Amino acid sequence: MSTYDRRVKRLTISDIAERAGVSIGAVSFALNGRPGVSEATRSRILSIAAEMGWRPNAAARGLSESRAHTVGLVIARSADTLGVEPFFMKFIAGLESELALTRTALLLQVVPDHPRSIEAICDWWAERRVDGLIVMDLWADDARLPLLESMRIPAVLVGRPRPDGGMPAVWSDDAAAVTEAVDFLVGLGHQRIARVAGLPALEHTQVRTAAFHAAMARHGLAPVAVVDTDYTWAAGAEATRALLAAADRPTAITFDNDVMATAGVSVARQLGVGVPHELSIIAGDDSQLCEMVFPTLTALSRDVQAYGAHTARTLLRLLNGGAPQSFQDATARLVPRESTAPC
Amino acid sequence: MSTYDRRVKRLTISDIAERAGVSIGAVSFALNGRPGVSEATRSRILSIAAEMGWRPNAAARGLSESRAHTVGLVIARSADTLGVEPFFMKFIAGLESELALTRTALLLQVVPDHPRSIEAICDWWAERRVDGLIVMDLWADDARLPLLESMRIPAVLVGRPRPDGGMPAVWSDDAAAVTEAVDFLVGLGHQRIARVAGLPALEHTQVRTAAFHAAMARHGLAPVAVVDTDYTWAAGAEATRALLAAADRPTAITFDNDVMATAGVSVARQLGVGVPHELSIIAGDDSQLCEMVFPTLTALSRDVQAYGAHTARTLLRLLNGGAPQSFQDATARLVPRESTAPC
Repeated sequence: MSTYDRRVKRLTISDIAERAGVSIGAVSFALNGRPGVSEATRSRILSIAAEMGWRPNAAARGLSESRAHTVGLVIARSADTLGVEPFFMKFIAGLESELALTRTALLLQVVPDHPRSIEAICDWWAERRVDGLIVMDLWADDARLPLLESMRIPAVLVGRPRPDGGMPAVWSDDAAAVTEAVDFLVGLGHQRIARVAGLPALEHTQVRTAAFHAAMARHGLAPVAVVDTDYTWAAGAEATRALLAAADRPTAITFDNDVMATAGVSVARQLGVGVPHELSIIAGDDSQLCEMVFPTLTALSRDVQAYGAHTARTLLRLLNGGAPQSFQDATARLVPRESTAPC
Repeated sequence: MSTYDRRVKRLTISDIAERAGVSIGAVSFALNGRPGVSEATRSRILSIAAEMGWRPNAAARGLSESRAHTVGLVIARSADTLGVEPFFMKFIAGLESELALTRTALLLQVVPDHPRSIEAICDWWAERRVDGLIVMDLWADDARLPLLESMRIPAVLVGRPRPDGGMPAVWSDDAAAVTEAVDFLVGLGHQRIARVAGLPALEHTQVRTAAFHAAMARHGLAPVAVVDTDYTWAAGAEATRALLAAADRPTAITFDNDVMATAGVSVARQLGVGVPHELSIIAGDDSQLCEMVFPTLTALSRDVQAYGAHTARTLLRLLNGGAPQSFQDATARLVPRESTAPC
């Protein structure tokens, strides 16, 4: 990881323009060999630029320096789901808030699956288009990680640290949060509790499901059901409909995100099942959605933007030569609102 | 615009791996001179790669080809606002859905203001890090546009076509949408109507405000007020509070986005003003927020993800040598829900 230079301040064409006393447009024309400035001006700008250490383009710069001043994020999901989950945009806003401080850009690509994701990562790295990567949506068995390790690509995992790996991780204790939700519902007298989970291949889904089973067992209870979904409104609605139609209907449901929990409220209303008096609902992510729906949703709440900022900071520290250092973010805490009540 | 090559299919290290019958990791090691493959394998891979036309990195590729296979988006806003407005993430999801088809990445940078935005654009262009740009949040007098034109940077405007420019624009008829909202409210008997607008420097805010005045005048009415804001929940709440405290309180308010309209509902409830029977509310953007709030919000609805996809398609067409061609997207249409009623 020591091949990265430690300079944070980079020379920009604005700096050159200021020194030369010309517009940034003129500097750009001169440096790129485009018409628009006189030959005399071009040669004066080029000599000032050279004096200041300017390299004419990313290509040459890539060969002489080692930084692209860009970090990459490959998201292996349908592009549609990005627009649906408030989580993603808040996380990206958090990344950007931190990256902006060092004028680092974010290279973002959405691909349908992990093989494509690996392909994009390899291309970016081979082409020196990124200095490092943010790896989200970790699978329990994630094919990307051995590749990243073997290629020595600096990367930060958004999820639990791997016991075997040297890659830093930014994570929070999902198991503790799920346990708090179960304890809260049991404290209200609920015994028939179901869980509507996220994508089953994701590690944090498995961590949460295991914690759900463990917390229920600690109270001597068995879950009514655990239903896997893809986080969408439609999947949340369908799962709720199935759970409420069953003979052993739950009196409480926890959902793995805000979007599915609001779908749950909506389906319950359609079926004439009163929330919270006949059915308590907890959302696994908090957002404005949870405060706006009626009744407002009890949720596991955390600062997702700060989570993004911590992730960017951890990666930048690594790129600046720091040792890989994981960061445990605050655990989500339960915010009781109107969607939960005594059984 | 003819300096862009027209090849859409690009050679990837996966192609080389397939031809050489080795893993993509091995190809990456070989091409980047990293340990991990034998010398014999490295030399075989390098010769196959050379035969297939591979250039060892973005630098060299940048010098020999002209495409970065990346488009840029510089957003001049506080990073915080990205996480709040569903609009942005849906728009970016739409961009990505189209860019993914040609394996084009999106380079995203958030900056605080237009001078920083210009600096980022110039750097990217000078360093050949992007093939073209998406320009959002157009100001009525926008300093970026003359620069983009003079530097001949391929760009697509998200907003109305400029009468003087050759840059293609992707836009929809904001004036018609605002007019429909006013006509709808007047049809319900409202005469005291206020508008809570977005950022006053933005061109589309000015277009909508002008359309609002014109539509009111056509009905022989004067607006109760037009309040400028920054699109945030706090600004929407404050504007609503001020409007409802005034002696000449409106019977209907239109808001320039969904976030502020939901804030309006919340403030009205706090003040004991019944929605819709004492106050009708229309949201200028539609999202799940509008369907979740109680009462549900009448909104100007459009497919924002498709808007993003059309924008990416328009830029890619330009980069592939097509003539600059603007695209008028569908006009937002009014979706009546529970927040509007006869006066």
